[in-house]
Amino acid sequence: MRDAYQEQLDDLATGLAGMCDDVAAAMRKATRSLLEADLQLAEEVISEDTGIDDVRAAAEHRAFGLLALQAPVATDLRIVVAAIHGAGDIERMGDLALHVAQAARRRHPQSVLPDEIKPYFAEMGTVGVRLAEKAGQVIRSRDLETAGELESDDDAMDDLHKHMFTVLMDRNWTHGVSAAVDVALLARFYERYADHAVAVARRIVYVVTGQMPGPLTV
Amino acid sequence: MRDAYQEQLDDLATGLAGMCDDVAAAMRKATRSLLEADLQLAEEVISEDTGIDDVRAAAEHRAFGLLALQAPVATDLRIVVAAIHGAGDIERMGDLALHVAQAARRRHPQSVLPDEIKPYFAEMGTVGVRLAEKAGQVIRSRDLETAGELESDDDAMDDLHKHMFTVLMDRNWTHGVSAAVDVALLARFYERYADHAVAVARRIVYVVTGQMPGPLTV
Repeated sequence: MRDAYQEQLDDLATGLAGMCDDVAAAMRKATRSLLEADLQLAEEVISEDTGIDDVRAAAEHRAFGLLALQAPVATDLRIVVAAIHGAGDIERMGDLALHVAQAARRRHPQSVLPDEIKPYFAEMGTVGVRLAEKAGQVIRSRDLETAGELESDDDAMDDLHKHMFTVLMDRNWTHGVSAAVDVALLARFYERYADHAVAVARRIVYVVTGQMPGPLTV
Repeated sequence: MRDAYQEQLDDLATGLAGMCDDVAAAMRKATRSLLEADLQLAEEVISEDTGIDDVRAAAEHRAFGLLALQAPVATDLRIVVAAIHGAGDIERMGDLALHVAQAARRRHPQSVLPDEIKPYFAEMGTVGVRLAEKAGQVIRSRDLETAGELESDDDAMDDLHKHMFTVLMDRNWTHGVSAAVDVALLARFYERYADHAVAVARRIVYVVTGQMPGPLTV
């Protein structure tokens, strides 16, 4: 019985880590669809999002079953509660990748982004994907050092996000209101994506230490 | 023992419903601070947000204690899991009210919003506050009819949100890039606030019926 129980706990973590890989792949594709005005990639991200939602529902179902049938305590209970939270955060990351893809689709065949802005979004995409992948690693390894790395990666994302606003508010912005609104919202999607990855890692810190790290700046 | 347990479950719901009232009050004040460029109100919302964060942490702690010590099943377990989710959603609503207040503070003594846009935000504020208050009522009453009302209130918010973008993208927008970016982000804060209120109500539907209603459009 104990073995089956442990297996269920492991399955829960494996499922969540896999979700992280899925939303990392979604954000990688969404960013490419944005930078290259690639409609087909955007459509892929959009149609694949329901799969991520399904995995989330399955993870919650599994967590609920564990609580109902096994009544875990201590670290095991923290794992299950962290998984409930994590599934929500990771699903939201998928939604944010979806929003990026939807923006690319909405403006196709035009590019959403002015050319000189693209390198920033390429970088936000890289940082975002790295955060999602690291969140998956942290779920698998429960390694606190990697969990800590997500905080500094998130600082890099925050800097990029702030810089985008400086660029938008500059008098030399020549791309008009519509492009500015797109850039502002897209930058926010990446920043929120990063925040959710950090939240996932923080829940794992809580699993390991029993303590939540300090609050995420909102 | 059973009585103390039932009391703990009731306390959990009462705490969450109170959080809804708190974030309704925060959004009411944040909206006024935005419409009237009232710095003092904005500062109140900003300083009171940590109180909401504390209530969330307390609710999670209480939920964790219930799981660990009482091992609830069936409806009771659904209540606890819904409370874990709900606390996260409601705290996020507080964060979004905070973002509105921060925007008001950032532009003070100027107004963030052009005059002709203010009525829309007054309406978004009213709808948002109503949603938060109704979410609190649904937690207290578990009334499915009221839970259903949140869906149509959220449709009203979505319409306002979409309309804001039509206004922004109009060639007759004369207020420049900076105001447009503010309006776009603020409209999104209200729309997300509403989504979280609906999510809270949907979790209560799940408590009562054992089934989640259909997915929220993202």
